[in-house]
Amino acid sequence: MALRMIGFDGDDTLWRSEDYFAQAQQTFEAIVAPYVELRGDALHERLYAVEKRNIAVFGYGVKGMALSMIETAIEITDARIAAADIHRIVQLAQSMLRHPVELLPGIREAVERVAARWPVVLITKGDLFHQEAKVRESGLADLFHRIEIVSEKDVATYARLLEEFGIDGADFAMVGNAMRSDIAPVIELGGHGVHIPYHLTWVHEREAQLADPSRLRTLENANALYDVLDEIERRMTATGT
Amino acid sequence: MALRMIGFDGDDTLWRSEDYFAQAQQTFEAIVAPYVELRGDALHERLYAVEKRNIAVFGYGVKGMALSMIETAIEITDARIAAADIHRIVQLAQSMLRHPVELLPGIREAVERVAARWPVVLITKGDLFHQEAKVRESGLADLFHRIEIVSEKDVATYARLLEEFGIDGADFAMVGNAMRSDIAPVIELGGHGVHIPYHLTWVHEREAQLADPSRLRTLENANALYDVLDEIERRMTATGT
Repeated sequence: MALRMIGFDGDDTLWRSEDYFAQAQQTFEAIVAPYVELRGDALHERLYAVEKRNIAVFGYGVKGMALSMIETAIEITDARIAAADIHRIVQLAQSMLRHPVELLPGIREAVERVAARWPVVLITKGDLFHQEAKVRESGLADLFHRIEIVSEKDVATYARLLEEFGIDGADFAMVGNAMRSDIAPVIELGGHGVHIPYHLTWVHEREAQLADPSRLRTLENANALYDVLDEIERRMTATGT
Repeated sequence: MALRMIGFDGDDTLWRSEDYFAQAQQTFEAIVAPYVELRGDALHERLYAVEKRNIAVFGYGVKGMALSMIETAIEITDARIAAADIHRIVQLAQSMLRHPVELLPGIREAVERVAARWPVVLITKGDLFHQEAKVRESGLADLFHRIEIVSEKDVATYARLLEEFGIDGADFAMVGNAMRSDIAPVIELGGHGVHIPYHLTWVHEREAQLADPSRLRTLENANALYDVLDEIERRMTATGT
Protein backbone atom coordinates (compact mmCIF):
# COMPACT_ATOMS: atom_id res chain seq x y z
CA MET A 1 0.00 0.00 0.00
CA ALA A 2 2.98 2.24 -0.53
CA LEU A 3 5.48 2.84 -3.28
CA ARG A 4 8.65 0.97 -2.37
CA MET A 5 10.83 2.01 -5.28
CA ILE A 6 10.87 4.58 -8.11
CA GLY A 7 12.62 3.83 -11.39
CA PHE A 8 13.94 6.49 -13.74
CA ASP A 9 14.78 6.20 -17.40
CA GLY A 10 17.96 7.98 -18.54
CA ASP A 11 17.92 9.19 -22.17
CA ASP A 12 15.43 12.03 -22.71
CA THR A 13 14.12 11.65 -19.17
CA LEU A 14 17.16 12.75 -17.15
CA TRP A 15 19.33 14.09 -19.98
CA ARG A 16 19.10 15.03 -23.64
CA SER A 17 19.76 12.25 -26.14
CA GLU A 18 17.38 12.19 -29.08
CA ASP A 19 18.33 15.78 -30.01
CA TYR A 20 21.84 14.55 -30.78
CA PHE A 21 20.50 11.71 -32.90
CA ALA A 22 18.33 14.21 -34.79
CA GLN A 23 21.36 16.48 -35.31
CA ALA A 24 23.36 13.45 -36.44
CA GLN A 25 20.70 12.72 -39.08
CA GLN A 26 21.10 16.26 -40.40
CA THR A 27 24.88 15.85 -40.53
CA PHE A 28 24.36 12.53 -42.31
CA GLU A 29 22.10 14.25 -44.83
CA ALA A 30 24.77 16.90 -45.44
CA ILE A 31 27.43 14.20 -45.93
CA VAL A 32 25.46 12.26 -48.55
CA ALA A 33 23.84 15.31 -50.22
CA PRO A 34 26.56 15.68 -52.91
CA TYR A 35 25.90 12.09 -54.06
CA VAL A 36 22.13 11.60 -54.00
CA GLU A 37 18.84 13.43 -54.57
CA LEU A 38 17.31 11.89 -51.45
CA ARG A 39 16.49 14.45 -48.77
CA GLY A 40 14.51 14.75 -45.52
CA ASP A 41 11.93 12.07 -44.78
CA ALA A 42 12.77 9.98 -47.83
CA LEU A 43 16.41 9.77 -46.72
CA HIS A 44 15.47 9.12 -43.08
CA GLU A 45 13.24 6.27 -44.17
CA ARG A 46 16.14 4.62 -45.97
CA LEU A 47 18.33 5.02 -42.92
CA TYR A 48 15.60 3.78 -40.57
CA ALA A 49 15.08 0.70 -42.76
CA VAL A 50 18.78 -0.17 -42.44
CA GLU A 51 18.77 0.55 -38.68
CA LYS A 52 15.75 -1.69 -38.22
CA ARG A 53 17.36 -4.49 -40.24
CA ASN A 54 20.55 -4.18 -38.15
CA ILE A 55 19.03 -3.77 -34.71
CA ALA A 56 19.02 -7.52 -34.04
CA VAL A 57 22.81 -7.57 -34.40
CA PHE A 58 23.87 -4.05 -33.39
CA GLY A 59 21.35 -3.21 -30.66
CA TYR A 60 20.74 0.40 -29.69
CA GLY A 61 23.25 3.21 -29.46
CA VAL A 62 25.64 5.47 -31.29
CA LYS A 63 28.06 2.82 -32.61
CA GLY A 64 25.28 0.80 -34.22
CA MET A 65 23.80 4.02 -35.63
CA ALA A 66 27.16 4.92 -37.19
CA LEU A 67 27.61 1.49 -38.76
CA SER A 68 24.05 1.65 -40.14
CA MET A 69 24.71 5.16 -41.48
CA ILE A 70 27.87 3.94 -43.21
CA GLU A 71 25.98 1.01 -44.70
CA THR A 72 23.13 3.28 -45.84
CA ALA A 73 25.54 5.81 -47.35
CA ILE A 74 27.27 3.06 -49.33
CA GLU A 75 23.97 1.55 -50.50
CA ILE A 76 22.27 4.78 -51.60
CA THR A 77 25.37 6.05 -53.42
CA ASP A 78 25.95 2.69 -55.12
CA ALA A 79 29.32 2.69 -53.34
CA ARG A 80 30.33 5.99 -54.95
CA ILE A 81 30.81 7.78 -51.61
CA ALA A 82 34.40 8.79 -50.88
CA ALA A 83 36.25 7.26 -47.92
CA ALA A 84 36.84 10.76 -46.53
CA ASP A 85 33.06 11.24 -46.28
CA ILE A 86 32.66 7.89 -44.57
CA HIS A 87 35.32 9.05 -42.14
CA ARG A 88 33.06 11.99 -41.29
CA ILE A 89 30.41 9.48 -40.15
CA VAL A 90 32.96 7.78 -37.86
CA GLN A 91 33.92 11.21 -36.49
CA LEU A 92 30.23 12.03 -35.97
CA ALA A 93 29.94 8.95 -33.75
CA GLN A 94 33.06 9.93 -31.81
CA SER A 95 31.76 13.43 -31.23
CA MET A 96 28.36 12.14 -30.06
CA LEU A 97 30.03 9.74 -27.63
CA ARG A 98 32.20 12.56 -26.27
CA HIS A 99 29.32 15.05 -25.98
CA PRO A 100 28.90 16.45 -22.45
CA VAL A 101 25.76 15.35 -20.62
CA GLU A 102 23.01 17.99 -20.55
CA LEU A 103 20.48 17.40 -17.79
CA LEU A 104 16.90 18.36 -18.64
CA PRO A 105 15.47 21.40 -16.82
CA GLY A 106 14.53 20.81 -13.19
CA ILE A 107 15.71 17.20 -13.23
CA ARG A 108 18.34 17.41 -10.54
CA GLU A 109 15.89 18.96 -8.06
CA ALA A 110 13.10 16.54 -9.01
CA VAL A 111 15.27 13.43 -8.60
CA GLU A 112 16.77 14.72 -5.34
CA ARG A 113 13.32 15.35 -3.89
CA VAL A 114 12.03 11.92 -4.91
CA ALA A 115 15.23 10.19 -3.72
CA ALA A 116 14.86 11.78 -0.29
CA ARG A 117 11.61 9.85 0.21
CA TRP A 118 11.83 6.66 -1.86
CA PRO A 119 14.71 4.44 -3.01
CA VAL A 120 15.35 5.36 -6.64
CA VAL A 121 16.93 3.24 -9.37
CA LEU A 122 18.09 4.17 -12.84
CA ILE A 123 17.00 1.74 -15.56
CA THR A 124 18.44 2.74 -18.87
CA LYS A 125 18.79 1.09 -22.25
CA GLY A 126 21.50 1.12 -24.84
CA ASP A 127 25.22 0.93 -25.17
CA LEU A 128 26.75 -0.03 -21.81
CA PHE A 129 29.93 1.98 -22.23
CA HIS A 130 28.18 5.17 -23.35
CA GLN A 131 25.41 4.91 -20.76
CA GLU A 132 27.97 4.43 -17.98
CA ALA A 133 29.85 7.49 -19.16
CA LYS A 134 26.63 9.53 -19.12
CA VAL A 135 25.64 8.33 -15.65
CA ARG A 136 29.12 9.22 -14.37
CA GLU A 137 29.07 12.68 -15.96
CA SER A 138 25.48 13.44 -14.97
CA GLY A 139 26.48 13.96 -11.33
CA LEU A 140 23.31 12.05 -10.35
CA ALA A 141 24.87 8.61 -9.83
CA ASP A 142 25.06 8.94 -6.04
CA LEU A 143 21.31 9.48 -5.78
CA PHE A 144 20.54 6.08 -7.25
CA HIS A 145 20.37 2.97 -5.15
CA ARG A 146 21.08 0.84 -8.24
CA ILE A 147 21.98 1.60 -11.83
CA GLU A 148 20.83 -0.96 -14.36
CA ILE A 149 21.87 -0.72 -17.98
CA VAL A 150 19.91 -3.18 -20.07
CA SER A 151 19.72 -4.05 -23.75
CA GLU A 152 15.91 -4.14 -23.93
CA LYS A 153 13.27 -2.68 -21.63
CA ASP A 154 10.46 -5.17 -21.91
CA VAL A 155 8.24 -7.06 -19.47
CA ALA A 156 10.85 -9.81 -19.00
CA THR A 157 13.59 -7.30 -18.14
CA TYR A 158 11.48 -5.38 -15.61
CA ALA A 159 10.27 -8.67 -14.08
CA ARG A 160 13.88 -9.83 -13.60
CA LEU A 161 14.96 -6.48 -12.12
CA LEU A 162 12.01 -6.26 -9.72
CA GLU A 163 12.78 -9.79 -8.56
CA GLU A 164 16.43 -8.82 -7.96
CA PHE A 165 15.30 -5.72 -6.06
CA GLY A 166 12.76 -7.78 -4.09
CA ILE A 167 9.92 -5.43 -5.05
CA ASP A 168 6.38 -6.26 -6.21
CA GLY A 169 5.26 -4.67 -9.47
CA ALA A 170 2.35 -3.00 -7.66
CA ASP A 171 4.78 -1.13 -5.38
CA PHE A 172 6.92 0.22 -8.20
CA ALA A 173 6.57 3.35 -10.34
CA MET A 174 8.64 4.06 -13.43
CA VAL A 175 9.30 7.58 -14.75
CA GLY A 176 10.21 7.96 -18.41
CA ASN A 177 9.62 9.47 -21.80
CA ALA A 178 9.01 6.29 -23.81
CA MET A 179 5.61 4.62 -23.64
CA ARG A 180 6.96 1.40 -25.12
CA SER A 181 10.08 1.03 -22.96
CA ASP A 182 9.32 2.87 -19.74
CA ILE A 183 5.58 2.78 -19.19
CA ALA A 184 3.76 -0.13 -20.88
CA PRO A 185 5.85 -3.03 -19.46
CA VAL A 186 5.70 -1.66 -15.90
CA ILE A 187 1.93 -1.22 -16.09
CA GLU A 188 1.70 -4.75 -17.48
CA LEU A 189 3.47 -5.93 -14.30
CA GLY A 190 0.88 -4.16 -12.13
CA GLY A 191 3.03 -1.06 -11.53
CA HIS A 192 2.60 2.65 -12.13
CA GLY A 193 3.86 4.75 -15.01
CA VAL A 194 4.69 8.44 -14.98
CA HIS A 195 5.10 9.53 -18.57
CA ILE A 196 7.05 12.73 -19.24
CA PRO A 197 6.99 13.01 -23.04
CA TYR A 198 10.02 14.49 -24.74
CA HIS A 199 9.67 16.81 -27.71
CA LEU A 200 11.47 14.23 -29.82
CA THR A 201 10.86 10.50 -29.57
CA TRP A 202 12.38 7.87 -31.82
CA VAL A 203 9.62 6.39 -34.00
CA HIS A 204 10.46 2.94 -32.60
CA GLU A 205 9.44 4.08 -29.09
CA ARG A 206 6.15 5.85 -29.73
CA GLU A 207 3.61 3.06 -29.87
CA ALA A 208 2.46 1.00 -26.94
CA GLN A 209 -0.70 -0.66 -25.65
CA LEU A 210 -1.42 -0.17 -21.99
CA ALA A 211 -2.74 -3.05 -19.91
CA ASP A 212 -4.40 -0.59 -17.52
CA PRO A 213 -4.43 3.11 -18.46
CA SER A 214 -5.62 4.07 -14.97
CA ARG A 215 -2.11 3.48 -13.65
CA LEU A 216 -0.61 6.04 -16.04
CA ARG A 217 0.06 9.69 -15.19
CA THR A 218 1.36 12.16 -17.77
CA LEU A 219 3.44 15.21 -16.92
CA GLU A 220 4.80 18.03 -19.02
CA ASN A 221 8.06 18.15 -17.10
CA ALA A 222 9.60 16.83 -13.89
CA ASN A 223 8.48 19.72 -11.64
CA ALA A 224 5.29 18.01 -10.42
CA LEU A 225 6.90 14.57 -10.21
CA TYR A 226 7.10 14.41 -6.43
CA ASP A 227 3.47 15.48 -6.03
CA VAL A 228 2.24 12.93 -8.57
CA LEU A 229 4.13 10.09 -6.87
CA ASP A 230 2.78 11.27 -3.52
CA GLU A 231 -0.75 11.20 -4.96
CA ILE A 232 -0.25 7.70 -6.39
CA GLU A 233 0.84 6.51 -2.97
CA ARG A 234 -2.06 8.20 -1.19
CA ARG A 235 -4.51 6.56 -3.58
CA MET A 236 -2.84 3.16 -2.97
CA THR A 237 -3.35 3.66 0.76
CA ALA A 238 -6.95 4.84 0.33
CA THR A 239 -7.96 1.90 -1.87
CA GLY A 240 -5.91 -0.61 0.13
CA THR A 241 -4.04 -1.82 -2.96
CA MET B 1 36.29 -20.22 5.81
CA ALA B 2 34.47 -21.46 2.74
CA LEU B 3 33.98 -20.26 -0.80
CA ARG B 4 30.59 -18.60 -0.97
CA MET B 5 30.51 -17.75 -4.66
CA ILE B 6 32.39 -18.59 -7.86
CA GLY B 7 32.60 -16.09 -10.71
CA PHE B 8 33.17 -17.04 -14.33
CA ASP B 9 34.42 -14.88 -17.15
CA GLY B 10 32.66 -15.36 -20.52
CA ASP B 11 34.85 -14.65 -23.58
CA ASP B 12 37.64 -17.23 -23.99
CA THR B 13 36.76 -18.83 -20.66
CA LEU B 14 33.33 -20.27 -21.45
CA TRP B 15 33.27 -19.72 -25.20
CA ARG B 16 35.57 -18.79 -28.06
CA SER B 17 35.96 -15.09 -28.78
CA GLU B 18 39.51 -13.98 -29.50
CA ASP B 19 39.76 -16.45 -32.38
CA TYR B 20 37.11 -14.46 -34.21
CA PHE B 21 38.92 -11.20 -33.56
CA ALA B 22 42.12 -12.79 -34.90
CA GLN B 23 40.25 -13.99 -37.99
CA ALA B 24 38.75 -10.53 -38.40
CA GLN B 25 42.25 -9.05 -38.41
CA GLN B 26 43.19 -11.39 -41.24
CA THR B 27 40.09 -10.38 -43.19
CA PHE B 28 40.97 -6.72 -42.53
CA GLU B 29 44.47 -7.36 -43.86
CA ALA B 30 43.01 -8.91 -47.02
CA ILE B 31 40.65 -5.93 -47.49
CA VAL B 32 43.40 -3.29 -47.27
CA ALA B 33 46.11 -5.36 -49.01
CA PRO B 34 45.39 -3.96 -52.50
CA TYR B 35 45.99 -0.41 -51.19
CA VAL B 36 49.00 -0.61 -48.87
CA GLU B 37 52.29 -2.42 -48.38
CA LEU B 38 51.63 -2.85 -44.64
CA ARG B 39 51.26 -6.48 -43.60
CA GLY B 40 51.17 -8.62 -40.46
CA ASP B 41 52.49 -7.10 -37.25
CA ALA B 42 53.11 -3.68 -38.78
CA LEU B 43 49.48 -3.47 -39.88
CA HIS B 44 48.19 -4.83 -36.57
CA GLU B 45 50.20 -2.21 -34.73
CA ARG B 46 48.51 0.55 -36.72
CA LEU B 47 45.10 -0.93 -36.01
CA TYR B 48 45.90 -1.44 -32.32
CA ALA B 49 47.04 2.20 -32.03
CA VAL B 50 43.68 3.37 -33.40
CA GLU B 51 41.76 0.93 -31.17
CA LYS B 52 43.66 2.15 -28.12
CA ARG B 53 43.00 5.79 -29.02
CA ASN B 54 39.28 5.01 -29.48
CA ILE B 55 38.73 2.76 -26.48
CA ALA B 56 37.78 5.67 -24.21
CA VAL B 57 34.84 6.48 -26.50
CA PHE B 58 33.97 3.12 -28.09
CA GLY B 59 34.71 0.69 -25.25
CA TYR B 60 35.25 -3.00 -26.00
CA GLY B 61 33.50 -5.13 -28.58
CA VAL B 62 32.85 -5.81 -32.22
CA LYS B 63 31.15 -2.51 -33.15
CA GLY B 64 34.00 -0.42 -31.78
CA MET B 65 36.48 -2.74 -33.49
CA ALA B 66 34.70 -2.25 -36.82
CA LEU B 67 34.65 1.55 -36.48
CA SER B 68 38.35 1.52 -35.57
CA MET B 69 39.09 -0.75 -38.56
CA ILE B 70 37.22 1.64 -40.85
CA GLU B 71 39.15 4.58 -39.44
CA THR B 72 42.47 2.74 -39.77
CA ALA B 73 41.68 1.68 -43.35
CA ILE B 74 40.91 5.27 -44.32
CA GLU B 75 44.03 6.61 -42.59
CA ILE B 76 46.53 4.12 -43.98
CA THR B 77 45.16 4.39 -47.53
CA ASP B 78 45.08 8.21 -47.38
CA ALA B 79 41.33 7.86 -47.99
CA ARG B 80 41.88 5.95 -51.24
CA ILE B 81 39.94 2.88 -50.07
CA ALA B 82 36.73 2.21 -52.02
CA ALA B 83 33.37 2.39 -50.26
CA ALA B 84 32.68 -1.20 -51.31
CA ASP B 85 35.74 -2.32 -49.34
CA ILE B 86 34.62 -0.33 -46.31
CA HIS B 87 31.29 -2.11 -46.63
CA ARG B 88 33.17 -5.41 -46.28
CA ILE B 89 34.33 -4.21 -42.83
CA VAL B 90 30.72 -3.47 -41.82
CA GLN B 91 29.73 -6.93 -43.06
CA LEU B 92 32.61 -8.46 -41.12
CA ALA B 93 31.16 -6.93 -37.93
CA GLN B 94 27.70 -8.24 -38.76
CA SER B 95 28.99 -11.74 -39.37
CA MET B 96 30.98 -11.72 -36.09
CA LEU B 97 27.91 -10.58 -34.16
CA ARG B 98 25.82 -13.32 -35.76
CA HIS B 99 28.41 -16.06 -35.22
CA PRO B 100 27.06 -19.03 -33.25
CA VAL B 101 28.48 -19.47 -29.74
CA GLU B 102 31.12 -22.20 -29.48
CA LEU B 103 31.63 -23.44 -25.94
CA LEU B 104 35.19 -24.41 -25.05
CA PRO B 105 35.86 -28.14 -24.50
CA GLY B 106 34.57 -29.53 -21.21
CA ILE B 107 33.07 -26.22 -20.11
CA ARG B 108 29.47 -27.30 -19.76
CA GLU B 109 30.41 -30.22 -17.50
CA ALA B 110 32.85 -28.10 -15.47
CA VAL B 111 30.35 -25.28 -14.85
CA GLU B 112 27.56 -27.74 -14.04
CA ARG B 113 29.73 -29.52 -11.49
CA VAL B 114 30.83 -26.26 -9.83
CA ALA B 115 27.27 -24.85 -9.89
CA ALA B 116 25.95 -27.93 -8.10
CA ARG B 117 28.09 -27.04 -5.06
CA TRP B 118 28.55 -23.24 -5.06
CA PRO B 119 26.43 -20.33 -6.36
CA VAL B 120 28.00 -19.28 -9.66
CA VAL B 121 27.84 -15.88 -11.35
CA LEU B 122 28.90 -14.81 -14.81
CA ILE B 123 30.91 -11.58 -14.93
CA THR B 124 31.66 -10.62 -18.48
CA LYS B 125 32.94 -7.51 -20.19
CA GLY B 126 32.09 -5.86 -23.45
CA ASP B 127 29.19 -4.94 -25.61
CA LEU B 128 25.95 -5.51 -23.65
CA PHE B 129 23.86 -6.53 -26.64
CA HIS B 130 26.41 -9.02 -28.01
CA GLN B 131 27.25 -10.47 -24.59
CA GLU B 132 23.55 -11.01 -23.82
CA ALA B 133 23.11 -12.78 -27.14
CA LYS B 134 26.08 -15.04 -26.35
CA VAL B 135 24.82 -15.84 -22.85
CA ARG B 136 21.40 -16.70 -24.29
CA GLU B 137 22.83 -18.93 -27.01
CA SER B 138 25.37 -20.62 -24.75
CA GLY B 139 22.66 -22.65 -23.06
CA LEU B 140 24.45 -22.00 -19.73
CA ALA B 141 22.35 -19.04 -18.54
CA ASP B 142 20.20 -21.12 -16.20
CA LEU B 143 23.24 -22.31 -14.25
CA PHE B 144 24.15 -18.77 -13.20
CA HIS B 145 22.69 -17.14 -10.15
CA ARG B 146 23.43 -13.70 -11.64
CA ILE B 147 24.74 -12.49 -14.96
CA GLU B 148 26.67 -9.23 -14.83
CA ILE B 149 27.81 -7.54 -18.02
CA VAL B 150 30.18 -4.70 -17.20
CA SER B 151 32.20 -2.23 -19.21
CA GLU B 152 35.42 -2.65 -17.24
CA LYS B 153 36.59 -5.43 -14.95
CA ASP B 154 38.71 -3.58 -12.43
CA VAL B 155 38.92 -3.49 -8.63
CA ALA B 156 36.09 -0.94 -8.37
CA THR B 157 33.74 -3.08 -10.48
CA TYR B 158 34.42 -6.28 -8.52
CA ALA B 159 34.09 -4.38 -5.23
CA ARG B 160 30.66 -3.05 -6.29
CA LEU B 161 29.48 -6.47 -7.47
CA LEU B 162 30.66 -8.29 -4.33
CA GLU B 163 28.86 -5.69 -2.23
CA GLU B 164 25.67 -6.24 -4.27
CA PHE B 165 26.06 -10.01 -3.84
CA GLY B 166 26.78 -9.56 -0.12
CA ILE B 167 30.01 -11.59 -0.39
CA ASP B 168 33.44 -10.87 1.12
CA GLY B 169 36.36 -10.84 -1.30
CA ALA B 170 38.04 -13.61 0.70
CA ASP B 171 35.08 -15.94 0.06
CA PHE B 172 35.04 -15.39 -3.68
CA ALA B 173 36.95 -17.12 -6.49
CA MET B 174 37.03 -15.93 -10.09
CA VAL B 175 37.72 -18.20 -13.04
CA GLY B 176 39.00 -16.63 -16.24
CA ASN B 177 41.58 -16.39 -18.98
CA ALA B 178 42.67 -12.77 -18.51
CA MET B 179 45.15 -11.96 -15.74
CA ARG B 180 44.33 -8.26 -15.93
CA SER B 181 40.53 -8.49 -15.94
CA ASP B 182 39.69 -11.75 -14.21
CA ILE B 183 42.48 -12.52 -11.76
CA ALA B 184 44.45 -9.48 -10.54
CA PRO B 185 41.51 -7.34 -9.28
CA VAL B 186 39.92 -10.27 -7.42
CA ILE B 187 43.23 -11.16 -5.72
CA GLU B 188 43.62 -7.47 -4.86
CA LEU B 189 40.27 -7.71 -3.05
CA GLY B 190 41.49 -10.70 -1.03
CA GLY B 191 39.86 -13.31 -3.24
CA HIS B 192 41.10 -16.29 -5.24
CA GLY B 193 41.91 -16.51 -8.93
CA VAL B 194 41.79 -19.57 -11.14
CA HIS B 195 43.56 -18.71 -14.36
CA ILE B 196 42.80 -20.83 -17.41
CA PRO B 197 44.96 -19.24 -20.13
CA TYR B 198 43.61 -19.22 -23.65
CA HIS B 199 45.85 -19.84 -26.64
CA LEU B 200 45.12 -16.31 -27.81
CA THR B 201 44.89 -13.33 -25.50
CA TRP B 202 44.46 -9.73 -26.58
CA VAL B 203 47.71 -7.84 -25.88
CA HIS B 204 45.72 -5.42 -23.69
CA GLU B 205 44.80 -8.25 -21.29
CA ARG B 206 48.13 -10.00 -20.83
CA GLU B 207 49.92 -7.96 -18.21
CA ALA B 208 48.97 -7.73 -14.57
CA GLN B 209 50.65 -7.42 -11.19
CA LEU B 210 49.34 -9.73 -8.51
CA ALA B 211 48.88 -8.45 -4.96
CA ASP B 212 49.31 -11.99 -3.62
CA PRO B 213 50.42 -14.74 -6.05
CA SER B 214 49.67 -17.44 -3.47
CA ARG B 215 45.95 -17.01 -4.17
CA LEU B 216 46.40 -17.81 -7.85
CA ARG B 217 45.92 -21.26 -9.41
CA THR B 218 46.62 -21.94 -13.06
CA LEU B 219 44.91 -24.66 -15.07
CA GLU B 220 45.36 -25.87 -18.62
CA ASN B 221 41.64 -26.37 -19.10
CA ALA B 222 38.43 -26.55 -17.09
CA ASN B 223 38.59 -30.29 -16.35
CA ALA B 224 40.28 -29.92 -12.96
CA LEU B 225 38.34 -26.81 -12.00
CA TYR B 226 36.10 -28.46 -9.42
CA ASP B 227 39.04 -30.15 -7.72
CA VAL B 228 41.05 -26.93 -7.57
CA LEU B 229 38.15 -25.00 -6.03
CA ASP B 230 37.63 -27.83 -3.58
CA GLU B 231 41.31 -27.65 -2.64
CA ILE B 232 41.14 -23.85 -2.18
CA GLU B 233 38.20 -24.32 0.15
CA ARG B 234 39.88 -27.08 2.13
CA ARG B 235 42.96 -24.90 2.59
CA MET B 236 40.75 -22.00 3.77
CA THR B 237 39.23 -24.31 6.37
CA ALA B 238 42.61 -25.69 7.42
CA THR B 239 44.18 -22.25 7.87
CA GLY B 240 41.03 -20.73 9.37
CA THR B 241 40.95 -17.89 6.82
